[in-house]
Amino acid sequence: MIKETLKVIKIGGKLIEDETKLQAFLLDFIALQGPKILVHGGGNMATEIAAKLGFETKMIDGRRITDENSLKVIVMTYAGWINKTIVGKLQALNCNAIGLCGADGRSIISKKRKVAEIDFGFVGDIETINTSFINSLLKAGMVPVFSAISCTSEGELLNTNGDSVAAEIAMSMSELYEPQLFYLFGKNGVLADVTNEESVIEHIDRNKYGELLKDKVITEGMLPKLQNCFEALEKGVSKICLGNERLLSKTSLHTEIVK
Amino acid sequence: MIKETLKVIKIGGKLIEDETKLQAFLLDFIALQGPKILVHGGGNMATEIAAKLGFETKMIDGRRITDENSLKVIVMTYAGWINKTIVGKLQALNCNAIGLCGADGRSIISKKRKVAEIDFGFVGDIETINTSFINSLLKAGMVPVFSAISCTSEGELLNTNGDSVAAEIAMSMSELYEPQLFYLFGKNGVLADVTNEESVIEHIDRNKYGELLKDKVITEGMLPKLQNCFEALEKGVSKICLGNERLLSKTSLHTEIVK
Repeated sequence: MIKETLKVIKIGGKLIEDETKLQAFLLDFIALQGPKILVHGGGNMATEIAAKLGFETKMIDGRRITDENSLKVIVMTYAGWINKTIVGKLQALNCNAIGLCGADGRSIISKKRKVAEIDFGFVGDIETINTSFINSLLKAGMVPVFSAISCTSEGELLNTNGDSVAAEIAMSMSELYEPQLFYLFGKNGVLADVTNEESVIEHIDRNKYGELLKDKVITEGMLPKLQNCFEALEKGVSKICLGNERLLSKTSLHTEIVK
Repeated sequence: MIKETLKVIKIGGKLIEDETKLQAFLLDFIALQGPKILVHGGGNMATEIAAKLGFETKMIDGRRITDENSLKVIVMTYAGWINKTIVGKLQALNCNAIGLCGADGRSIISKKRKVAEIDFGFVGDIETINTSFINSLLKAGMVPVFSAISCTSEGELLNTNGDSVAAEIAMSMSELYEPQLFYLFGKNGVLADVTNEESVIEHIDRNKYGELLKDKVITEGMLPKLQNCFEALEKGVSKICLGNERLLSKTSLHTEIVK
């Protein structure tokens, strides 16, 4: 049986914070045919609000350390303001969006990360995606918009890497669909020279990835992103692209990750 | 055709903020048989966070004046933290909750209130409830949990009176169900003497309401609540009760509003 294509799109904080870029992206997004899912993080907004409330934000290896206060701020900004404003904007464009976090319909169940060398705090690693729930929304013609927050089976909300949320959803939905994964972030793609936006590496396979790692081209935030990509390709995702806010328009320079 | 009963329960900010009372309520709530909907406000949490962020909160006639900053805080706290923690707690109790605001699935469409004597700011008066969307969730065995935020047809989020959200949902759903409306708040019911929690007026009809208004027993927050009640009774709601966090347990003293 030929499976229908399902597009899973992750947008990063920098895109969300730029009104013009966000609107350009949303117009590309609503033009996409067929079932689709949007996943968003929040980035600096949580950090800024935490700072105003007198909470400090710590990062290690591109991942946030989430104490009780920062979890609250993250849920407020990601699942609250950002999620609902995006849903409102999509509804205004006649796209029937529904904003969710992992607790809603037990859609993204995770386990609190065990304390090893680093205590990440209230951070979740995804265990299961409720594919039948997500599929029922897609079949009803709805467009799920997920904030990067998961939930333990005991109902505890946990901060979760947005790239992982997108990858896990795409991988799990491969039971029912042929998923494609799109990461839209602040750059034109994976760059050979971080100071030059034109130096996009158009194709990366495992060999090339090894080289880039060795040459330290890939660092910080890009590292978990690419790790997720190769795992996703092994687990049923058919296509992965990384690029800027116009990635979905197909005209922009971008990186494609291949097996 | 005999319609199925649908219970619509509104909980207020004071109940939400008290961990013990909230948990007692949630246990009563999950024990309710049949389709049900939860509506919550947020109360003091938004005010406190707004204050910490340096924003002032204004109230007139028990209704919040919502400027751009306070809208942001309200969406963050109501649709973000409060909504998602309640959904998490319900999921932990095996209740398949889904947290929504009016933008999600165009569920609660409102119009921005016109400026008359008072400019309420980003405040919405409800125009339509998407009954088929809400019904599809109920039919799938889900429990919608609404934060008191609506959305214009142009996708603008608006702060909305939580009692009105509950009443409008109940009235609209009367097409398909026989709705009952429960308002749980900080008191045992409508009190003849506000200083005496035992002075609950057990039944209020329109005549009694007129008397209470004249004698100024009903003031501030209680005024729109009771106005909503009588409108709801005229428009298809079969039963309305007001009481404390144990109202659903049926053992507690409470007020019933009758035609």
